[in-house]
Amino acid sequence: MSEKETIKKLSGLGKEMVEQIEKKRSPTFEAALRSRGNIEYDNAVGYLRLGEKKEERRFLNVSQARTFMQTVAIANKTKKFLRENLHTSIRGLYYQLKFSLGENLDESLFEEQTESNALVEDLEVAMGIKREDLHLTTDRKGVVAGNMTVNDSFAGEETVIDCAKQGRSGWMIPSDVDNGMEFVDVKADYVLVVEKDALWQRLNEDRFWKKDNCILITPKGQASRGTRRMIRRLADKGLPVYVFTDCDAWGWYIYWTIKTGSMNLAYLGSDFSIPEARFIGVTMGDIEKFEFLKKLTIKAKPIDIKRAEEMMNYPWINTHPEWVKELKKVLTQKKKIEQDALQGQKLTFVGEYIRGKIRNKEWLP
Amino acid sequence: MSEKETIKKLSGLGKEMVEQIEKKRSPTFEAALRSRGNIEYDNAVGYLRLGEKKEERRFLNVSQARTFMQTVAIANKTKKFLRENLHTSIRGLYYQLKFSLGENLDESLFEEQTESNALVEDLEVAMGIKREDLHLTTDRKGVVAGNMTVNDSFAGEETVIDCAKQGRSGWMIPSDVDNGMEFVDVKADYVLVVEKDALWQRLNEDRFWKKDNCILITPKGQASRGTRRMIRRLADKGLPVYVFTDCDAWGWYIYWTIKTGSMNLAYLGSDFSIPEARFIGVTMGDIEKFEFLKKLTIKAKPIDIKRAEEMMNYPWINTHPEWVKELKKVLTQKKKIEQDALQGQKLTFVGEYIRGKIRNKEWLP
Repeated sequence: MSEKETIKKLSGLGKEMVEQIEKKRSPTFEAALRSRGNIEYDNAVGYLRLGEKKEERRFLNVSQARTFMQTVAIANKTKKFLRENLHTSIRGLYYQLKFSLGENLDESLFEEQTESNALVEDLEVAMGIKREDLHLTTDRKGVVAGNMTVNDSFAGEETVIDCAKQGRSGWMIPSDVDNGMEFVDVKADYVLVVEKDALWQRLNEDRFWKKDNCILITPKGQASRGTRRMIRRLADKGLPVYVFTDCDAWGWYIYWTIKTGSMNLAYLGSDFSIPEARFIGVTMGDIEKFEFLKKLTIKAKPIDIKRAEEMMNYPWINTHPEWVKELKKVLTQKKKIEQDALQGQKLTFVGEYIRGKIRNKEWLP
Repeated sequence: MSEKETIKKLSGLGKEMVEQIEKKRSPTFEAALRSRGNIEYDNAVGYLRLGEKKEERRFLNVSQARTFMQTVAIANKTKKFLRENLHTSIRGLYYQLKFSLGENLDESLFEEQTESNALVEDLEVAMGIKREDLHLTTDRKGVVAGNMTVNDSFAGEETVIDCAKQGRSGWMIPSDVDNGMEFVDVKADYVLVVEKDALWQRLNEDRFWKKDNCILITPKGQASRGTRRMIRRLADKGLPVYVFTDCDAWGWYIYWTIKTGSMNLAYLGSDFSIPEARFIGVTMGDIEKFEFLKKLTIKAKPIDIKRAEEMMNYPWINTHPEWVKELKKVLTQKKKIEQDALQGQKLTFVGEYIRGKIRNKEWLP
């Protein structure tokens, strides 16, 4: 969405309210309900999304007036950010709100960022807009390297970033990979997402992304919004996406969050999910396949087992027999394997492992 | 230290032990004691370091034999990494050790990474070597932008990184900024270290590093080893270092760790401390100076107060009257200020604030 359109949307929200007031009606706006009861896995599209249930926010409602006013204040502030052509974090927004409204309000209202965070979500859902479009920056975590260049139009400057010329490190994935940013000359065959930075560094040293012609990304654990958007945009260019994590419920859930989103992020929908992503390991099946891994497994802790049991209940996971088989192995063998363990016998084995998995199509859905 | 020298040092350790064995003596090696009793703040140099106390590790000692053997195994493995010209993380090293030794040893010995971490510290201290020199990669976290280029010789490739051409993001600070890496064409007047990434992004959007000709670094909280080494190397080029953090004991401690090191990291000494660093804010004094900040303070929690009290006891801090004054204000006013609060009135104020502090030399030692 262009900045102009976003401003128009925000102004539209305001105008609508003014009209309601002029008609002596209480201003209202509507947003999809974000509670559990309205989250569903949509099998047809392959990701978690909000259902049809809406909630109306009314100004003339004692329990909602406060939240209503704050949401309007956020809409107003972010419109200002857009007009000024400046960005800030949610924390920065919070202090701007606190400065403008703080003295006229119960102090505790703005004491916690969690509250302004929920209000931003309200606005995102109500207006069908991403917070990045509202000039709100988010936490950065991921790193990328590979055969692609990025045209970055930012702060009045045009920069070309060559992700194949980042040496030992890599380009930090920005908070917003959409507005003013284009991926050009993507000359890679696929995207490889590696859970841990340590493994990314190992593969980068082997120049794996060069030899195997892929875009090498690490989210460094759970993927940030920017990282998920980058993977989504590369998938939109037709690149297959392979994900490589630890063999435990936590690592696997990183994969599932990238693929289908999660309960908490269901409101984000298609922009932040990659249903076509495939999982290449580490799997419990690998213990039988690779002799050397046998002595490098770790005992699963009760919390690992509990998490695996929970995953067995998610309909978007337990409808895949391959995943049920894997989860059952965790529950019976009570083991886990870190992706780091693949280096146990030979440091460069990690690349061979990935290559083999992709070549032989040994992936899980 | 060159790789050749490191290999020589590691081989030297081995040869010495062989000689001891040939003389029918128990192999030994000596390392500086890393416990609290041997950590001192050296006022002459301005950082925390280990004292003169040594501990001898003996193979023929029931309680030390195990640790001794593991340290030797680590020396052996890392020598192999150096010879192969490959790097891995401590976790990767752990699995290599587990693969080689796991079956012949009590499994639990290598169950926890913390143990191999302590052993790596042993080796670093005993040999006066950094783990980076042993081809061990560490966690990456910081980001840099500014007028400098980096010549990166890595994995058989030469890359020139222009830190002024990183667009909206920045170059991720690598794990090792020493071996095969040179900072050239550093055309900046100073280094600015900003605690939080959100503020770094704000300043990067304002092109602060360009307008004010500085190297803009965020450690993203406590600084990683790579980030501390990068700041150290830039300080060695004669660049003043200014640090900008939250106004609370945690933010201030980030500053002190960069400046003097910390108790846990005292064994690292001069390579990882920047005694010449200066603190430009946020200070409790700023509350009186900037009217708008008054309503943007946060109530300090009991844990914040407790931490401030602890800092009052550190001789490297409480010998500075400026810091005692600041800490006392925390204890009496029971407030804190986040650096994000500086954006409360005007998003671009952050840059003005930093500019004013440096211009007027309003820094703390």
